[in-house]
Amino acid sequence: MRVSASLVRGGTSKCWLFDHRHVPATLDRLERLLVDAYGAKDPVHLDGVGGATPTTSKAAVVKPCPDEGVDVEYLFGQVGIGVDRVEWGSNCGNCATAIALWSVARGLVPVGGDLTRVVMRNTNTGALLEATVDTAGGLVPEFGTQTVPGTRSGGVAVGLTFLDPAGRTTGALLPTGNADEELRLAGEAVRVTMLDAGAPVVLVDAAAAGLTGAEPVAALRGEVGWLRAVRHAAAPRMGLLRAGEEPGDAVPKVGLVGAPVPYVSSTGDRVAASDYDVSVRMLTMNDPHPAIGLTSAVAVAAAHLVDGSVVRRVSTATADSQLRIGTPAGVVLVSATDIGPSGPHRVTVRRAARVLCDAEILVPEPALPTAA
Amino acid sequence: MRVSASLVRGGTSKCWLFDHRHVPATLDRLERLLVDAYGAKDPVHLDGVGGATPTTSKAAVVKPCPDEGVDVEYLFGQVGIGVDRVEWGSNCGNCATAIALWSVARGLVPVGGDLTRVVMRNTNTGALLEATVDTAGGLVPEFGTQTVPGTRSGGVAVGLTFLDPAGRTTGALLPTGNADEELRLAGEAVRVTMLDAGAPVVLVDAAAAGLTGAEPVAALRGEVGWLRAVRHAAAPRMGLLRAGEEPGDAVPKVGLVGAPVPYVSSTGDRVAASDYDVSVRMLTMNDPHPAIGLTSAVAVAAAHLVDGSVVRRVSTATADSQLRIGTPAGVVLVSATDIGPSGPHRVTVRRAARVLCDAEILVPEPALPTAA
Repeated sequence: MRVSASLVRGGTSKCWLFDHRHVPATLDRLERLLVDAYGAKDPVHLDGVGGATPTTSKAAVVKPCPDEGVDVEYLFGQVGIGVDRVEWGSNCGNCATAIALWSVARGLVPVGGDLTRVVMRNTNTGALLEATVDTAGGLVPEFGTQTVPGTRSGGVAVGLTFLDPAGRTTGALLPTGNADEELRLAGEAVRVTMLDAGAPVVLVDAAAAGLTGAEPVAALRGEVGWLRAVRHAAAPRMGLLRAGEEPGDAVPKVGLVGAPVPYVSSTGDRVAASDYDVSVRMLTMNDPHPAIGLTSAVAVAAAHLVDGSVVRRVSTATADSQLRIGTPAGVVLVSATDIGPSGPHRVTVRRAARVLCDAEILVPEPALPTAA
Repeated sequence: MRVSASLVRGGTSKCWLFDHRHVPATLDRLERLLVDAYGAKDPVHLDGVGGATPTTSKAAVVKPCPDEGVDVEYLFGQVGIGVDRVEWGSNCGNCATAIALWSVARGLVPVGGDLTRVVMRNTNTGALLEATVDTAGGLVPEFGTQTVPGTRSGGVAVGLTFLDPAGRTTGALLPTGNADEELRLAGEAVRVTMLDAGAPVVLVDAAAAGLTGAEPVAALRGEVGWLRAVRHAAAPRMGLLRAGEEPGDAVPKVGLVGAPVPYVSSTGDRVAASDYDVSVRMLTMNDPHPAIGLTSAVAVAAAHLVDGSVVRRVSTATADSQLRIGTPAGVVLVSATDIGPSGPHRVTVRRAARVLCDAEILVPEPALPTAA
């Protein structure tokens, strides 16, 4: 009836983290448990611990990993809002930073000096991630002063590196073989780059669609309909659908890309065009993303290295290794290093995480495992 | 650094409940703790356990009450969203049902057979409330099948009676002495009933304002501006402001009242005009209320007993003792009994509550008490 879990902020996401021993091992029973625990059926998550927005309705199940060189593995779930389902098709980088901090705080990964390295495998996508958690003095801090764009609240500094992110889902950095192409939607042509790094992503040339890619979140709400159609048109081209399968709303991720222009961030900061290199406005499910998912940030950074991609065409960056992405929440800096022919071997972002609470969630009996 | 609390749903609200021994006794330090615990400063409560909507950003501190005939007392706080403040000026009836269940589940109030009676005093307003918690077989259930309009999720049945609710804040059921009057706003006249029962409330005659009082929540968003002006104009008339004080957004509560018309509830149910007696659309802070606060429901039921009030004029109810209020979430039944010259001595609603989780919330050190 009671399931232990911790609510942890990672960057601009809130995620409930579960130890694998406390939840069912089968996906359908786990999904049932999360739906009941979050109150997912209700559009405001009234009867549960869900946050009722895409960035605050996330879950992950964490377990130690027996593989050499990998500390923990995790399954990520995007819990439904107003629907009794969980999307299992994607990864969440912000949650990975939360998992890294929590794994060290729980003793799942031993403290390794002033910085503790946590290597994680995301079992949804196969992604391999390396986090470095600030454990100055050999202690795991509960609070910190590191901030990320989108909130003024500090957290424990966590660096997150995506290892060899290209092609993890589709087998290739450019699943269609092209850096740039036209998608036809109801007779209209949309210029896009379809790319798989961090996550499968379809990046739309904003200017070709009469937009800037720096639209405020409120304005972006009016663009969700056709961007969703872009996602659905891209999914089969990127090899993301099995025969007869309908496209979903989690993958590929979709967003607008444009040249830098001045704008005001959601925290009220004025951002000059010279403060960043490329404008990006992503969706999260069918809502404008309030910032950018880290997996999408990785994809944008990888696209920046590809000649002819929509990112490369509009970016004002002067070096390959650093890209400043203008998001609604502010500027996210992404470092791409160790660059090979199939993309960067390491893509790194600096984040902050914080454990918000440790809890026992009450869940109706039928959702729980029959044996531990 | 860690504060024990339980997240409990009461009706259509989610409320974190704190044992008074775990939080500071002074209001300013308590406010600081709640602001930090909820991440109140952030408009999406990213760095805390808040729910980022008015009905999911509530808190109460509960303690045993030494007074004869009263089991527990509680202080209610409406935690800010995007502001580092807590409103202390009002009560919340949904939270009172949560507090009743939690007090029995925690052993603060002993189980009293198949139904356990819990008498509570709200220390914000002086309101006295009597709850009956379903403890069939002498056991405290964790789940139940009782539902309330606004959600299909069941909970433990809790009946809630407001005892002698009239005049608790202002000293009189009709603070201005009138059942019906005109408020002038920027030259425009608005017909209202200003009444104090459950909470100080200003009820606006929707028809006189060219509305129905059965508007969908989305349409009501466009009416928030002038309804807020009505609240601010009513506050001094109702004696709710000290000299020099500016009106706030918690009291009086404000809403539209109209005759029954057919509508579709937020859970998709068709509601016929014959299914209810009076339409009500309240605000919660500066947002349309998704249902109705129970304190407002008490005020509407009390107004129904007053000749000439806006409720009495439009209501189709055939008896004084039962009023069916049409809210965006569906129909809420309110019973008013033991009616005297200054209003009903007992106003009762049937609700459902459920403990969602028991937690330890991590809060930065400076917000915590120096001594227990």
